[in-house]
Amino acid sequence: MTGLLRDLAALVDPRRVWGDVEDLVAYTNDATHRRELPAAVVAPESADEVAAVLRYANQRGIPVIPRGAGTGLAGGAVPVSGGLVLDLKRLNRILEIDHKNLTATVECGVVTGHFQREVEARGLFYPPDPQSLAVCTIGGNVATRAGGPRGVKYGTTKDYVLGLEAVLPDGSVISYGGKSVKMSAGYDLARVFTGSEGTLGVITKVTLRLLVLPPSRRIMIAAFPELDSAAEAVSALIARGAEPSMLEMLDRIAVTSLQRYLPLGLPPDLEAFLIIEVDGHPAKVEEDCALVAEVCREYGVHEVRVARDAAEAERIVQARRALFPAAARAAPNLVIEDATVPRTQVPAMVRAIRRIAERHQVLISITGHIGDGNLHPGIIMDRRFPESVRRAEQAMAEIAREALNLGGTLSGEHGIGLLKAPFLEWEFGEAGVSLMRRLKRAFDPHGIMNPGKILGGGTAGVRD
Amino acid sequence: MTGLLRDLAALVDPRRVWGDVEDLVAYTNDATHRRELPAAVVAPESADEVAAVLRYANQRGIPVIPRGAGTGLAGGAVPVSGGLVLDLKRLNRILEIDHKNLTATVECGVVTGHFQREVEARGLFYPPDPQSLAVCTIGGNVATRAGGPRGVKYGTTKDYVLGLEAVLPDGSVISYGGKSVKMSAGYDLARVFTGSEGTLGVITKVTLRLLVLPPSRRIMIAAFPELDSAAEAVSALIARGAEPSMLEMLDRIAVTSLQRYLPLGLPPDLEAFLIIEVDGHPAKVEEDCALVAEVCREYGVHEVRVARDAAEAERIVQARRALFPAAARAAPNLVIEDATVPRTQVPAMVRAIRRIAERHQVLISITGHIGDGNLHPGIIMDRRFPESVRRAEQAMAEIAREALNLGGTLSGEHGIGLLKAPFLEWEFGEAGVSLMRRLKRAFDPHGIMNPGKILGGGTAGVRD
Repeated sequence: MTGLLRDLAALVDPRRVWGDVEDLVAYTNDATHRRELPAAVVAPESADEVAAVLRYANQRGIPVIPRGAGTGLAGGAVPVSGGLVLDLKRLNRILEIDHKNLTATVECGVVTGHFQREVEARGLFYPPDPQSLAVCTIGGNVATRAGGPRGVKYGTTKDYVLGLEAVLPDGSVISYGGKSVKMSAGYDLARVFTGSEGTLGVITKVTLRLLVLPPSRRIMIAAFPELDSAAEAVSALIARGAEPSMLEMLDRIAVTSLQRYLPLGLPPDLEAFLIIEVDGHPAKVEEDCALVAEVCREYGVHEVRVARDAAEAERIVQARRALFPAAARAAPNLVIEDATVPRTQVPAMVRAIRRIAERHQVLISITGHIGDGNLHPGIIMDRRFPESVRRAEQAMAEIAREALNLGGTLSGEHGIGLLKAPFLEWEFGEAGVSLMRRLKRAFDPHGIMNPGKILGGGTAGVRD
Repeated sequence: MTGLLRDLAALVDPRRVWGDVEDLVAYTNDATHRRELPAAVVAPESADEVAAVLRYANQRGIPVIPRGAGTGLAGGAVPVSGGLVLDLKRLNRILEIDHKNLTATVECGVVTGHFQREVEARGLFYPPDPQSLAVCTIGGNVATRAGGPRGVKYGTTKDYVLGLEAVLPDGSVISYGGKSVKMSAGYDLARVFTGSEGTLGVITKVTLRLLVLPPSRRIMIAAFPELDSAAEAVSALIARGAEPSMLEMLDRIAVTSLQRYLPLGLPPDLEAFLIIEVDGHPAKVEEDCALVAEVCREYGVHEVRVARDAAEAERIVQARRALFPAAARAAPNLVIEDATVPRTQVPAMVRAIRRIAERHQVLISITGHIGDGNLHPGIIMDRRFPESVRRAEQAMAEIAREALNLGGTLSGEHGIGLLKAPFLEWEFGEAGVSLMRRLKRAFDPHGIMNPGKILGGGTAGVRD
C-alpha cells in the first residue's frame, strides 16, 4: 500500500479506499471515450469525511475528482490529471420531503430516478429528467445543470436548486439557501456551485424545489415532411400559449436507426418527427392537444395524433429513451453533442449540422429538445481509427461554433467538462474566461478541484 | 469645477455630469433613512460610457455606486463612502421583445412597470412585481433579486434572468447567457451578478424570460380570527395543488392603518386578512377558487369571498399597494423588514415579531407574502429621536436573528445593502462570508464597487 493510500485509510474506513488497478478501472471514464487512471478512489459517507479528504489533498496539491454515477457526456469525471476520485454514491440519503413547503433535502449521491419515484408517490413532482435518470445522481445533475425533455416547460436542474451545502478545498463547509423560493442575501453561492462541474468544491447536500404532480398528461406524435415547418410549428405553438412539457424532435436518420431497434410504424420518408407531451389541468391539456393538432396542420404536418392509451404513450417515451442505446448499437462510438440555440434558430442549426456532416463525411443523426433549442447531434465515429476521431472532433468544434453564431451556447445541459474546454473563450471572450479563472481561484486557490475541466489546462497531477 | 468633474466631463457629455450640492442631494439616499453626499453624479448613456467611467475610477480607487431608481429598501444605493453615483436611468431602451422565443432584452434603466405594460400589450407576461414597479428599474431589480406578491407562484426576478451584460471595474465587458432556458457553460456569471447589489460591476443589459399572459384571473379575500389558522390554511392550500399567484397577509395593525386611508369594510377585530389571487386556465381558476373557499372554511375562516367584479378586485390590489404609503403617513419613519422563513414557519415568525415588538416597545405592523414566507414587518420609528432609532434597530436585528433560527434568510427580496451587512455572518458563517469576500475580490480587486454594501466595512472614499 502506498503512502497515499495509507494516508487516506487514516481519514476514512480503509474498506472505502481503493488503489488496485482492477478497482480503479471502473473510475477511468464517464460516458465519453477518454480514459485515464486515477491514483486512488475514496468513497466518503459524510460531508465530514469529504472535508477530511479535501483538506489532506489541498495541503499536498493532489487533484480531486468528484464523481456521481459517471454518466456525464462532457468528460467531467475523467481523472485526466490522476489524483483521487471521490465516489459520492454513498451519500445517498433523502433527508426530507417537506410536503407543506414543497421542498426536499437530499444528499448528493441520491439517484435521480429513485428520488422522483419517492416524490411522486406523495403526489409531488420533481421535473428534471436527464436521459440517465435511472442511475445518475442529484449531485451530478446539479454540478452539470442537467436537463432533459421536460426543460421546455419546467427548466433544468438549476431551476430547482433552492440551496446547497458544499465542502471547499480547505475543508470548510459552506451552505447557501434554504426552503424559500425568495432569497436575496449575499452572492448566490448555490448558483455558483450549480454547473461548476466539481471544479470549485464538492456539493454534499441539496435542497430542491418541488411541484405538485400535474393531474393529467397526454402524449402526441407528429410527422412532418419538412424539418423547417416542424420547427415553425413548434415556435407558433408556444407563442400561442400551449405549454408542452416535452417537445422532442427526431430526424430521418434517428427514426430509421430507432425503428431498427423498436418498430414504431412511422413512415420512413419524412424529415421530422415530433413527440409532444402536454400536462397540467385536464381542461388545459385537452385544449393544448387541440391546439397542437391545429397548429401542426397549419404548418403542413403529414400526420398528427394523440397516443391511443397509456400503453402507447409509454411505448413512445421508451422509444425516445432508447434512442442513444439504439444509435450506440448501430455505431462503434457516438459523440453526443449538446449545442443549444434559441428555439427559432433550430432550422438554421439543423441545416448547419447537415452541411458540417457533409463537409467532414461523418454520419450525424439529429435529435433533441426542439422546444427549447437544445439539440443533440449524434456524431458517429470509431475510436480505433485516428482519422475517424479527428473528423468527429472537427465536426464537434464546428457545431459548437455554429451554435454560438446563431446566438446559442456551447452546452444546454451536459456541461463543458473536458470536451468543450478548448471552446470556452469562443462563448465568453477573453474577459469572461479571465473572470472565470479568477472566480475559480477564489474558491480553489491551489487548483486541486477537477483540474482541466471547464477552464482547460489541467495541472500535472499526482499519479502516485 | 474640480479635477474629478473635469475628468468625468472628458469621458461623458458634461451635461450629464453633476457636482453641485443642489444636484447631488437627490442622490444621497434610497428608500431608507441613511443619507450621504456623493462627490459627483454621472449619467452614462451606453455601456461604453459606463466602461470609461469605471476604468477611470478603478485606476484612482474612487468608489462607484450604481443607481437605478433609488427605491431600494436596504440602503444599497446610499453613497456611504462618497465617490461617484452612476445614474443608470438613461440606459432605458427595450431592445427586443421576442415573441417566438418568449424573451426580452432590455437595458438596465428600463422601468419595470413600463416594461410590463409593453409586454402585456403583446399578450405576454413578465411576473416580477415589486411594490415600486411604477418607477423602479429592471437593472435595480436584477441587482437586488427583487420580488413582489407574485413570487409565491412565479418566483422573483432571479428566476427570469436568462442572461446579462455587465461592465467590470477594469472597464472590460462580459456577457453571460442568452435566449435559451437551458444553459450549462462555465460558471453562472449571470447569477453571480443577480443579487450582487452593485458590488461586482455594473449590469448594463439583461435578457429576460417571458411567459404567455394567463387568460383568467380572480381575486379573493379571506378574514381569519386567528393568524395561525390563516397560515395553516395557506400551507394546506398549496400542498393540495392550488397555485395562487398572490397570497398576501395583513395583520390587525396593518388593516387598521390601511382602512384609515382607504375604507374596505373589513371587520376590525380579526387577526389576519388574506388577499388571494389565482390565475391561469379558466377551469383551473374556477377550481382553485372553490378549493380556496373550502380550505379556508376548514381552517375556521370568518369570511371568504371572491371579488364581485374587476373594479372590486382592482380596489383590493390598490389597497395592498397603498399599504406602505398608508403606514408612512401614519408614522414618522418606517423601516420595512424583509425577513423570510419557510412557509410553515410563518406563525412562529409572527409570534416572534410580536414578542420582539413588546420587548422593545415598538409598534410593528405585520404584512407580507405569506404564501412564500416573505414577511414585511413594518417597524415604526422617528429618526429625530436617537432612542427611537436604537430601539427600531434592535428590533430589526432580533427579527433577522429569529428568521435565521426558523430556517429562513436575512432577505427575501430587498437585499442586504447597508442595513443588514452587519448580520451577514449570522446566515453564512465565517467560511461563507470569507468566500464571498474572495469572490468580491475576483471581480473587483480594488474594492471600488459600492463599498460597504453586502460585506460591510466600506473603504474610506473620495469625497473630493
